[in-house]
Amino acid sequence: MNKKVDVSPIRYFNDTIRLLGEGGLLLVSGNEKKANVMTIGWGLPGRLWAKPFFLVAVRPSRYTFQFIEDTGSFTVNVPTGDMKEILNYCGTVSGREHDKFKEKGLTLLPGRKVSSPVIAECAVHYECKVAFKTKVVPVSLPSEVLSTFYPRGDYHTLYFGEVLACYADEDAENKL
Amino acid sequence: MNKKVDVSPIRYFNDTIRLLGEGGLLLVSGNEKKANVMTIGWGLPGRLWAKPFFLVAVRPSRYTFQFIEDTGSFTVNVPTGDMKEILNYCGTVSGREHDKFKEKGLTLLPGRKVSSPVIAECAVHYECKVAFKTKVVPVSLPSEVLSTFYPRGDYHTLYFGEVLACYADEDAENKL
Repeated sequence: MNKKVDVSPIRYFNDTIRLLGEGGLLLVSGNEKKANVMTIGWGLPGRLWAKPFFLVAVRPSRYTFQFIEDTGSFTVNVPTGDMKEILNYCGTVSGREHDKFKEKGLTLLPGRKVSSPVIAECAVHYECKVAFKTKVVPVSLPSEVLSTFYPRGDYHTLYFGEVLACYADEDAENKL
Repeated sequence: MNKKVDVSPIRYFNDTIRLLGEGGLLLVSGNEKKANVMTIGWGLPGRLWAKPFFLVAVRPSRYTFQFIEDTGSFTVNVPTGDMKEILNYCGTVSGREHDKFKEKGLTLLPGRKVSSPVIAECAVHYECKVAFKTKVVPVSLPSEVLSTFYPRGDYHTLYFGEVLACYADEDAENKL
């Protein structure tokens, strides 16, 4: 097992944002008994209320949605370069029908500060506690965003997660 | 005048987020005739709706607020290392009583894609068009956030700005 060391939450923001657009990141929510993972291609890391934050967007139809609602927490896991097929799979099938962790041989480690676990095989981990959430409301969205992403509604909830812990493989920067 | 070259919006995200916590960034909104600048210490750059985005938070009491409401745009300007005193000044006095650009010798350049101008002396520039906005509502905030940041209400509006243009001094990375 790779040794995970604490890092500043801003240490890997650049790679994290870059990888959002190149295959995605793995969003996990739940607890030690039951959790789900989904691939995300959107997200906003940064600073808010004088703390490090990570905003993620999840549609109510997603299986992950209720886990975040129930636990008030999630983790963002930055995959290594050789996990592209896993990213594709976790963004395609639903946890309602598949145990994606088992099927893809992903190892869950307990969260250090939140109930949601992290994925051991990933290189960088953000543990987030939801401090604020808001729903995308169609009235103020540009029409091209509405027609492209919301033809059937299912508007995202935007979760503002305070980053309570951030850690990474010691050699994370060689793996991203 | 420094030559400004187009860069990928993610090129300077790391420095941008780091500097949010070390003196801040300069937020500008308005047009060529009238604009204002304020220092921000919070912000979330990233990806949303398949585009680069920059979220900023502005209280309704701020002079900048109405400029963003009126123009639907803002720019985020990343200062050089020698602008700390300017950052401090622009975060202390209000544009209602002070022409901060004039008083601090800041040069405005017209926005390339939005009405809001940028500050020539800064090293990196994000031009943003507001695609979505939402107000912080107290009911779902942690009590320590409420008591620390909202003892008198004045809840921030969160502006989600699509980054329509991003450019920087050719030697920006030596100046940040």
